[in-house]
Amino acid sequence: MMNKVIGIDIGGTSIKLALFDMTGLMLDQWSIPTNTANEGSEIPADIIQSIRERMSRGTQCLEEILGIGIGVPGPVNEKVVKRAVNLGWTNFPLKQMIEKSLNIPVALLNDANAAALGEMWKGSTEHVRNLVFVTIGTGVGGGIIVDGKILNGQHASGGEIGHIPVHSTEERICGCGNINCLECYGSANGMVKTMNRLADRSAVSNTKEIFDLIEADDPQAKETLKMTVDYLGRAIAGVMNTLDPEEIVIGGGVSEAGPLFLAPLRAAIDSYAFPQISGSFRLRKAILGNEAGMYGAAYQIVSTLKEYAV
Amino acid sequence: MMNKVIGIDIGGTSIKLALFDMTGLMLDQWSIPTNTANEGSEIPADIIQSIRERMSRGTQCLEEILGIGIGVPGPVNEKVVKRAVNLGWTNFPLKQMIEKSLNIPVALLNDANAAALGEMWKGSTEHVRNLVFVTIGTGVGGGIIVDGKILNGQHASGGEIGHIPVHSTEERICGCGNINCLECYGSANGMVKTMNRLADRSAVSNTKEIFDLIEADDPQAKETLKMTVDYLGRAIAGVMNTLDPEEIVIGGGVSEAGPLFLAPLRAAIDSYAFPQISGSFRLRKAILGNEAGMYGAAYQIVSTLKEYAV
Repeated sequence: MMNKVIGIDIGGTSIKLALFDMTGLMLDQWSIPTNTANEGSEIPADIIQSIRERMSRGTQCLEEILGIGIGVPGPVNEKVVKRAVNLGWTNFPLKQMIEKSLNIPVALLNDANAAALGEMWKGSTEHVRNLVFVTIGTGVGGGIIVDGKILNGQHASGGEIGHIPVHSTEERICGCGNINCLECYGSANGMVKTMNRLADRSAVSNTKEIFDLIEADDPQAKETLKMTVDYLGRAIAGVMNTLDPEEIVIGGGVSEAGPLFLAPLRAAIDSYAFPQISGSFRLRKAILGNEAGMYGAAYQIVSTLKEYAV
Repeated sequence: MMNKVIGIDIGGTSIKLALFDMTGLMLDQWSIPTNTANEGSEIPADIIQSIRERMSRGTQCLEEILGIGIGVPGPVNEKVVKRAVNLGWTNFPLKQMIEKSLNIPVALLNDANAAALGEMWKGSTEHVRNLVFVTIGTGVGGGIIVDGKILNGQHASGGEIGHIPVHSTEERICGCGNINCLECYGSANGMVKTMNRLADRSAVSNTKEIFDLIEADDPQAKETLKMTVDYLGRAIAGVMNTLDPEEIVIGGGVSEAGPLFLAPLRAAIDSYAFPQISGSFRLRKAILGNEAGMYGAAYQIVSTLKEYAV
């Protein structure tokens, strides 16, 4: 028998699960659909049943599982999921429910924080303990790791980089209710809005079209990119001047554009960062993709178990 | 004999020293002038001599001193003062020099970080482990404490809140070489510049005059305050959305204006902060004044000694 943990990433459409050894080697991986009926009340039972089934296959057994880490799409504290709008949860006692049924310790964390931890654990080629993870996709999210630990914050709002206020001549209303959050301009949606505004019509419907236009030397698409990385660069430079991390990791759909996006973003950050930092910080693309959350959830429970073992 | 530590705050004109017991009770306090001749090379010997003399007075003795914490006006790493422009130091091995001569362990830290730790240790009425300290004086400085520890950063630039980039229709060049850092607008100097620009003449020479004019209902002075707290509010809200600390502490000369300054600053932060944070965070005025650095330096060595004792 070998000590193992399970890392889970609960998304709006599917729940991804993976079995890891204590060093983070992924041993098995599967997924189940997310059942959001009845305000997501079936989800815990679905997870429990799925784990029981999977752990009775072949040589796998439930007794090997020392702990379970679960990343959820919303703020969490040590005990409950405070909110997960996509799942229908408010102050949802997920930890207690799973622990009670399986009799295995559970650690909860926010999904962006889980991805940040995953990238720290298995994405960095160097030993990194201080990292800022920025995910640039439909929205802009983030996770901050200080001294190897997630900075969850007093209101479980640590790392909410997408809601840094930015300055604009426009007024865009953010999903959070505020006006002109970074997410309104720095996300894929924001970028599409900026492009269509510059073009004064619905010129594009996604960022792939924008990057294709950039490669075709389209001036409006180029201006859109310039504006987008300027918003992101200012905000990320502000974060860097505050936290001065070892590494900035950029993930999310927009980062898939690669150097076309990351090179100008790096230049924008450089231009706004404190002189001691500018030009001498490490910025890299996230490499774990949609597996980052499972890795990070596993890391969280592994480190929680280690802490208790001391 | 009783275990004690010494906390030192090296400033451009004077060096403040204090003797503390291990719980942070100040037992003795004195100061010596800062001798910046010969690129500050006399400073270590001055400190050593002053400690030797003071610790041979009355019942005090050097053998009681378990450690010395020293706050310096510049970035430090674990071993050296990387730069202290006002003192003439570059990669200055202050720690080693004092340790070698007195045979007592020394901890170095940046002065703003020291003040932050001091405010955490002896300024907060509650048990706080996560705090953002912002000092608004001639410039804008800061210190960030996460889980009870200073966030010093990879380039010793952690907490450089004054160098968060801001947006302005003007271009003001910052001492760091960048353009439009928060410090250019949010500091006492920045506030005076804003007021004189609005008045289109040298209307005021310090912030006291501005606050006096505000109390006399002067529209330009009121607009200056509004603009200043807007710059600060945006930047601090950005920091809060990133770090979500337990407490924000505002120090420095401008904070001495009290509610006249802090109430609109609080409102500005509220208007830009993430909804979960807005209206429900603790903001307070720093209370230790220019003793904060000595307290924080003492705290740093006390916690370093505790760490090694484990």
